[in-house]
Amino acid sequence: MPTLNEIQKAHSRIKPFIHNTPVLTNSSLDDLSQAELYFKCENFQKAGSFKIRGATNAVLQLSEEDLDKGVATASSGNHGAALSMAVTALGGKTKVVMPDNTPDIKIRNVKRNGGQVIWCEPNQISRDKALRKVLEDTGSILVHPYNDKDIICGQGTASLELMEECPDLDILITPVSGGGLLGGTLCYAKEKNKNIQVFGAEPMEADDAYRSLLSGEIQSNETTNTICDGLRAQIGTITFPIIRDKVNGIIPISEEDIISTMQMIWERMKIIVEPSCSIALAAVLNNKSIFSDKKVGLILSGGNVDLDQLPWYD
Amino acid sequence: MPTLNEIQKAHSRIKPFIHNTPVLTNSSLDDLSQAELYFKCENFQKAGSFKIRGATNAVLQLSEEDLDKGVATASSGNHGAALSMAVTALGGKTKVVMPDNTPDIKIRNVKRNGGQVIWCEPNQISRDKALRKVLEDTGSILVHPYNDKDIICGQGTASLELMEECPDLDILITPVSGGGLLGGTLCYAKEKNKNIQVFGAEPMEADDAYRSLLSGEIQSNETTNTICDGLRAQIGTITFPIIRDKVNGIIPISEEDIISTMQMIWERMKIIVEPSCSIALAAVLNNKSIFSDKKVGLILSGGNVDLDQLPWYD
Repeated sequence: MPTLNEIQKAHSRIKPFIHNTPVLTNSSLDDLSQAELYFKCENFQKAGSFKIRGATNAVLQLSEEDLDKGVATASSGNHGAALSMAVTALGGKTKVVMPDNTPDIKIRNVKRNGGQVIWCEPNQISRDKALRKVLEDTGSILVHPYNDKDIICGQGTASLELMEECPDLDILITPVSGGGLLGGTLCYAKEKNKNIQVFGAEPMEADDAYRSLLSGEIQSNETTNTICDGLRAQIGTITFPIIRDKVNGIIPISEEDIISTMQMIWERMKIIVEPSCSIALAAVLNNKSIFSDKKVGLILSGGNVDLDQLPWYD
Repeated sequence: MPTLNEIQKAHSRIKPFIHNTPVLTNSSLDDLSQAELYFKCENFQKAGSFKIRGATNAVLQLSEEDLDKGVATASSGNHGAALSMAVTALGGKTKVVMPDNTPDIKIRNVKRNGGQVIWCEPNQISRDKALRKVLEDTGSILVHPYNDKDIICGQGTASLELMEECPDLDILITPVSGGGLLGGTLCYAKEKNKNIQVFGAEPMEADDAYRSLLSGEIQSNETTNTICDGLRAQIGTITFPIIRDKVNGIIPISEEDIISTMQMIWERMKIIVEPSCSIALAAVLNNKSIFSDKKVGLILSGGNVDLDQLPWYD
């Protein structure tokens, strides 16, 4: 399990390659939530999401020999773009297995950062099969989007920066998909401040983490029928034990609440965020008994939204 | 004509009531423009636009007696919301004459800030008539949205903050409608740094400032058929002489370029800006001979966009 010290080392390693993103506040959302909200804006991060943190941390530790073999991953988009950016910067090649229903902007982001896209169907079986084939055919090195200790350490650095800027937070909340961001957040935050509470927020339509936590064992997603294209992955074998042992709770959120909260953030904060991170604010607004009167840090995980496909136009 | 000193005094006066908004940069837009761009983000300003600067400067100088009479204005929305916010904070009442095609978000902003909306048709004659009637019927004090020295001084404070943060800008560019923002910018910037160039950007579909500058006399808008709901006003008798004497040029922009640039800012910078300020970046991208290799300050004037009515869905 990653330690505080490993996450601090990851931060020193990746710092020159990432933005220390701003922490925004908004008085009208504070009023609405009856809490003090601190938004860590990873939507302003390089390649448009927190994923550059883990990808950079992993890639910087590859040997030159491994880098020469090329790097491959499977990603709904943000990890793929981030990994491509990190690998291209070091002169390597990246292959990204992507579901064929990925938003255009995320496909463009992978390509713009030098990655090569390999299509799969939008389900775990097809994704795994396509990735295995790439690895076998090309000898590329896998950099998994979340089930990897270096990735988890990298993602934990978002909370490190947030807690440095706001040292007296009572609660942290992040979205949860494969569990890299939530896992890294838990490993850092709980060791840094034993009193802090950490929650995950997850779509009801892709609630494997929620059900896994209830049962104590990894459960599969029954649907991934969510607008949150970044939250359709399966909780990992490395990330789940961290979450099971440390998290204060996983909060499932309806599609309706995700969409209305996304629109609210856009309208009130004047920033573009993905549905995949609006979910954290939805969880806060739906659970006043947990969050009211608290200082709450929310990780706005990314801003790669297809502006031609906004959910409130459906 | 406002002096540097008057704008500095306005800044000291309004400073406790406004945000010193952030200045953002974006490497991909720098690459595209072949310039160094510094975006002054008044979309993050209180009430969602720079208008709170002028409104606050004007309202703070009203006598208690005048404030008791109530305040009135005509506004496409942002000045109305800002004035309502400033007046409500001092315990006064505001009446806002608004065109009946104003975006919903701007109507809600006026009401949320305590203003009362009075409808007019979307043309200058109806607007003037409705405002005159309000002033005669109620005895309210007029705070004009732009043709007022205190307003111009207030709007000039956006450039003051931008030039304090980025002291070596070569060029400033702002949108122009009634001329309050451009006028205040010219008065401040040209006195602060005699070498700085200052441009205005204006919709081709509401190009009164452009044609007025060409002819040397105030011309009327022939159409106001532009997506830029904030740029449909008529250049003022106080603002025009400032612009005529000091501006380096007014750049007219097509609707198509305004919309595509707005989408580009949203997608690349992950911030919500109105079409009325995207126009400044469109002017930079269309005129490399003026802007390339320069340090350019752009005032992103506001972020009040109706998310249900985005132009790329038309």
